[in-house]
Amino acid sequence: MEESNLQFWRSIAVKMTKQVEKAVSPLVGKKEAGEIIKMGADGTPSKLIDLIAEDEVIEVLIRSKRPVILISEEIGTIKINSSPNDYLDTESLRNAHDENVEPDGDFFKTSPDPQIIFVVDPLDGTSNSVKNIPAFGISVAVAEYIPGANLPSLRDVKMGFVKNFATGDFYEAIKGRESMVNGERVFPSTQDSLNKSSMGAFIYGTKFSQVNNICKIIRRMRILGSVALELSYVGNGAYDAFMDLRGNLRVVDIAAAKLIVEEAGGIVTDQEGKSVDGLLSVNARTSIIAAGNSNLHQEIMKIMEVI
Amino acid sequence: MEESNLQFWRSIAVKMTKQVEKAVSPLVGKKEAGEIIKMGADGTPSKLIDLIAEDEVIEVLIRSKRPVILISEEIGTIKINSSPNDYLDTESLRNAHDENVEPDGDFFKTSPDPQIIFVVDPLDGTSNSVKNIPAFGISVAVAEYIPGANLPSLRDVKMGFVKNFATGDFYEAIKGRESMVNGERVFPSTQDSLNKSSMGAFIYGTKFSQVNNICKIIRRMRILGSVALELSYVGNGAYDAFMDLRGNLRVVDIAAAKLIVEEAGGIVTDQEGKSVDGLLSVNARTSIIAAGNSNLHQEIMKIMEVI
Repeated sequence: MEESNLQFWRSIAVKMTKQVEKAVSPLVGKKEAGEIIKMGADGTPSKLIDLIAEDEVIEVLIRSKRPVILISEEIGTIKINSSPNDYLDTESLRNAHDENVEPDGDFFKTSPDPQIIFVVDPLDGTSNSVKNIPAFGISVAVAEYIPGANLPSLRDVKMGFVKNFATGDFYEAIKGRESMVNGERVFPSTQDSLNKSSMGAFIYGTKFSQVNNICKIIRRMRILGSVALELSYVGNGAYDAFMDLRGNLRVVDIAAAKLIVEEAGGIVTDQEGKSVDGLLSVNARTSIIAAGNSNLHQEIMKIMEVI
Repeated sequence: MEESNLQFWRSIAVKMTKQVEKAVSPLVGKKEAGEIIKMGADGTPSKLIDLIAEDEVIEVLIRSKRPVILISEEIGTIKINSSPNDYLDTESLRNAHDENVEPDGDFFKTSPDPQIIFVVDPLDGTSNSVKNIPAFGISVAVAEYIPGANLPSLRDVKMGFVKNFATGDFYEAIKGRESMVNGERVFPSTQDSLNKSSMGAFIYGTKFSQVNNICKIIRRMRILGSVALELSYVGNGAYDAFMDLRGNLRVVDIAAAKLIVEEAGGIVTDQEGKSVDGLLSVNARTSIIAAGNSNLHQEIMKIMEVI
C-alpha cells in the first residue's frame, strides 16, 4: 500500500476507535446495554451496545467517501461507497443489506483495482462492557486485497488496531514495521519457562486432557474475556503467552491482534502449530496458540503433546 | 462501634486508598516496580511497588494519631501510636519491628478497651500492576476487637473497602448496613443457573477432578488476577459467583471483600460450605466459594460433589 493511502486509512481507523469509544461509553455498566436486539450475521445474538458500536463503524466509513469493504460481526460483509450513488446513511445501508449472504469470489472481483477491507469487531468483550469489567474495546484490521484467485485472508492484513476502552490503552501494528502501545514501540516477553510464565487461556469449554498439564505447571493464568486485547498482550509482554482452544474463535476477531503480536516479534499459530491464515469472513473460525518467543511456543506445544 | 468512631476510621480508610493509589501510579506498567526487594512477613517475596504501597498505609495510620493495630502482608502485625512516645516515622517503625513474630493473645489484650485493627492488602494484584493489566488495587478491612477469649477474626470486621486503581472503581460495605460501588447501593446477581453464569475462578494449580465439571457447564469464566476485586464483583453482580480452591488464599486478603459480598446479600463460604471466620493473621489461609444467591451457591456445591 502506498504511504499516503496507508496514512489515510490509518487516520480513518484511529477516528473509528475514538468515535466508537465515545458512542458506547454512556452504556458501560448499564443493564440495557446487554439487551438482545437481534441475531448477528454469524448467528450469535446482537446486544444493544454491539449495534451502537457497529453503527458508529459504518458511519465513519461512509464519511471517508472512499470505496471500502466492511466485514463486521453484526452486518456481515458489505460494500460502502462503492458507487457514487450509495453515500447512504447507516440505517438504509442496514435495511438494504442481507446479512446472511456469504460473499463469493465475484463479490471481491468487481474491480481490478486493489480493494481496502476493514475487518472490525466493533466491541470485543461485550459482556465485560455490560458488567463494567475493565477489558473491552474495538479491534480494527485494515487489509489490502488485490483481486486474484484466492479470497481475502489474514495474509492480506496490513494494519491492526486494538483499543481497550476501559483503560484507553491503544495497540497498533503496521505490517513489516513494528508494534506500538500508546505510541511507544513494544517487544514481546523473552520468558521461555512455562513455570515462570503468565498466560491468558480460554480453557473452559475445552478438552481438559489437553490443558490439564498446562494448568498444573503455569505460574499465572488469566482470562479477562477479550481475545483481541489478550492476544495483543503477547505483543508487549503483558502476557508471556495466550491460547484459545475452544475452536470457535472468529478469524475476524483476531485479525488485528495477530499482526500486533507478529510485528512485535511474537509467534501465532493454531493449536496444531500451523500458521493461521484463515479467510476474512464472519464465519471462519480457528484456534490460537501465541507466545512471545519460539522457545516458549515449543514448550507449550510439547506439553500439549502435539509435537 | 460508635457512629463518630465509624466515620473517623472510614475517613482514614478512604484517605489510605487515595494516597496509596497516588503513590503507586507512577510505577504502574514499569519493570522496576516488580523488582524483588525482600521477603514479606508471610514468606512471599515483596516487590518495590508493594513496599511503596505499604509505606503509604503506615504513614496514613501514624498520622491518624490514634492507637491502631495494622495487619499487612509485608510488615506483619504491628501496633501504631500505642504509646505517646511512638509517633514514629515509617522507616524507624519498620526497623524496630520483627516481622516474623506471630502475635499471641497477650498482644491484643494489653488494653481492656476496644481496639481498632486495620487489615490491609496494600496492593492486591501486584503482578497485574507491573504489567498494566487493569485489575489491581487496595483492600482495607477495619475490625473492632473487644479483648476476650478469642483472637480477632473475620467476625470482628466492621467495614470493608476495595479500590481498583486501574479504573478508580471503589467498593465499600459497613456491617449491618449495605454495600456500595462508587457511592451507589449494589445488589448481587439473582442468576441461579450455572450454565448461564459468569464466574471468577482461580482454577490453575487446583485439583482438576473438582473443577472439571464446573468448567464444562459454566457460561463464562474469568481470572483477572485480583482476588479482593473479583470477590467484590459478586457483591454488585459483575460476577454471578467466584471461587478460589487453591487453598492458599490469605484470610487478610479477603477480609474487606467478604463483607462487601455479604452486606450486599451474597453468600461466602469455604470449599466445604462452611462459614469463613478465619483469624486476622498474615499466616491464616482459606478457600472461597461465593455466589450472588443461595440457589447458585448450592448448584456449585452440588456439581463439586461436596453436598
